[in-house]
Amino acid sequence: MTGLGIIAGGGELPRAVAQSARADGRAVFIIGLKGSLDENEPWLQAFPHEFASLGAPGQAFKSFRAASVTDVLLAGKLDRPRFSDLKLDAKGVMLLPRALKAARQGDDALLRFVVTMFEEEGFHAIGVAEAAPGLVCSEGDLGRLGPNDDARADMARGFAIVKALGALDVGQAAVVCEGLTLAVEAAEGTDRMIARIGTLREALRGTPENKRGVLVKALKPTQDARTDMPVIGTATLEAAAAAGLAGIALEAGGALIMDKQAVAGRADALGLFVTGVRL
Amino acid sequence: MTGLGIIAGGGELPRAVAQSARADGRAVFIIGLKGSLDENEPWLQAFPHEFASLGAPGQAFKSFRAASVTDVLLAGKLDRPRFSDLKLDAKGVMLLPRALKAARQGDDALLRFVVTMFEEEGFHAIGVAEAAPGLVCSEGDLGRLGPNDDARADMARGFAIVKALGALDVGQAAVVCEGLTLAVEAAEGTDRMIARIGTLREALRGTPENKRGVLVKALKPTQDARTDMPVIGTATLEAAAAAGLAGIALEAGGALIMDKQAVAGRADALGLFVTGVRL
Repeated sequence: MTGLGIIAGGGELPRAVAQSARADGRAVFIIGLKGSLDENEPWLQAFPHEFASLGAPGQAFKSFRAASVTDVLLAGKLDRPRFSDLKLDAKGVMLLPRALKAARQGDDALLRFVVTMFEEEGFHAIGVAEAAPGLVCSEGDLGRLGPNDDARADMARGFAIVKALGALDVGQAAVVCEGLTLAVEAAEGTDRMIARIGTLREALRGTPENKRGVLVKALKPTQDARTDMPVIGTATLEAAAAAGLAGIALEAGGALIMDKQAVAGRADALGLFVTGVRL
Repeated sequence: MTGLGIIAGGGELPRAVAQSARADGRAVFIIGLKGSLDENEPWLQAFPHEFASLGAPGQAFKSFRAASVTDVLLAGKLDRPRFSDLKLDAKGVMLLPRALKAARQGDDALLRFVVTMFEEEGFHAIGVAEAAPGLVCSEGDLGRLGPNDDARADMARGFAIVKALGALDVGQAAVVCEGLTLAVEAAEGTDRMIARIGTLREALRGTPENKRGVLVKALKPTQDARTDMPVIGTATLEAAAAAGLAGIALEAGGALIMDKQAVAGRADALGLFVTGVRL
């Protein structure tokens, strides 16, 4: 098997993908994105890696080639750069006009541009589903619990909202509780969106003692599954429990679960459901 | 002119409507909604008023009739009741099943139900545009400043998002900054949505020194303009300025501005635009 190059942004996904791919026997080389991934992440030390900025991709191309990387994968949260602050290398100067144009079209367009940039250098862009198939959410309940009728109605509403928003390249997540949309994700990210549920009046939402409402995550229709699939992990589950939610519903085949066994165990312990729905 | 009955929820809108209608020469009687409007609001003392809960509308009907009210208007934020906590009068008991059904269909359906409840008692439901036409946003710039090309592109995107969300009865507002959707409103309300812009990384947003991004508010397609038109006032403007936004864009004919003169003056002083767009 040839080498897998991971262009790694923030969050837990790059670690999960790197560890899963290595467990499958692949050689992994990581380019951390400056400003998006912390250079001192402990897990990084177990992998050959270096850091690059979006404005200076030349060195990344060279390093991937030196490490016999053929397949590349973009994983994790990409912090939008301030283009005026970017230090550019020769490749970066050439690519900048297209990068600026893509950035103006939204997050997905920018991510697609980064992927295209590597493809034009001869790398083969793959998605997480291919690099680490064990992370992809499948259909049905992950733990012991499943959604009740209220939760199913909220899930249907939540998926409709996320797909409508996704078509406009807004977010991947929403929280619905008994017909009322409590929160919709935009640039703040899922964790902070969940955190604000707990600040709403208690009449609108559940509590850890009386769980109500569902976090829904799904792939944006505009989204390239190679770049930015929605992800949950145990931290998402803990946040959902603290916010009084009854469970989490994901698009089967369109979302990732980091460490399924741990998530299933915590879901059972906390009394939440985690379920995959084929849309 | 016959009496105007205002069913008043929270926020500044009920005051603005009551004062505007009285300035136009109408007799005004106010029913404050318990739990939504503070019983000690100073402005209330200038008007005949009493408080009622959604579960006990019988007294409200009687009081409106005693005050020769013919037209009724629902204005302000309605805090969703916990139906299990409601104390019911005879009318409330009869209406409860329909109220519960409406509540499950979302906020707009619940508001429409409250309006219908008064119409079935023989009152004529009117909207703010009719009760206080001076508050309705018109087309064009309110103050000296107008949107530049970046802001116009963000406005177009913002209106598309708000209309798509509105069709699903989610929110009435969004913030877009150079193509990126920074925040979308759900149950938290516009003020808290704006406040979180300031907590995003500075690369994504503007600052009071370098203003970028636009707050967009528009009528939901599902929305009954008699119940819940989007509103701004000087407080919205101050929040937008603090969050580094360049301006506010409203749907002309589909949004309200409390105290246009004050908003225009503050907008000029803060260096923001406030503009109405015919959609």
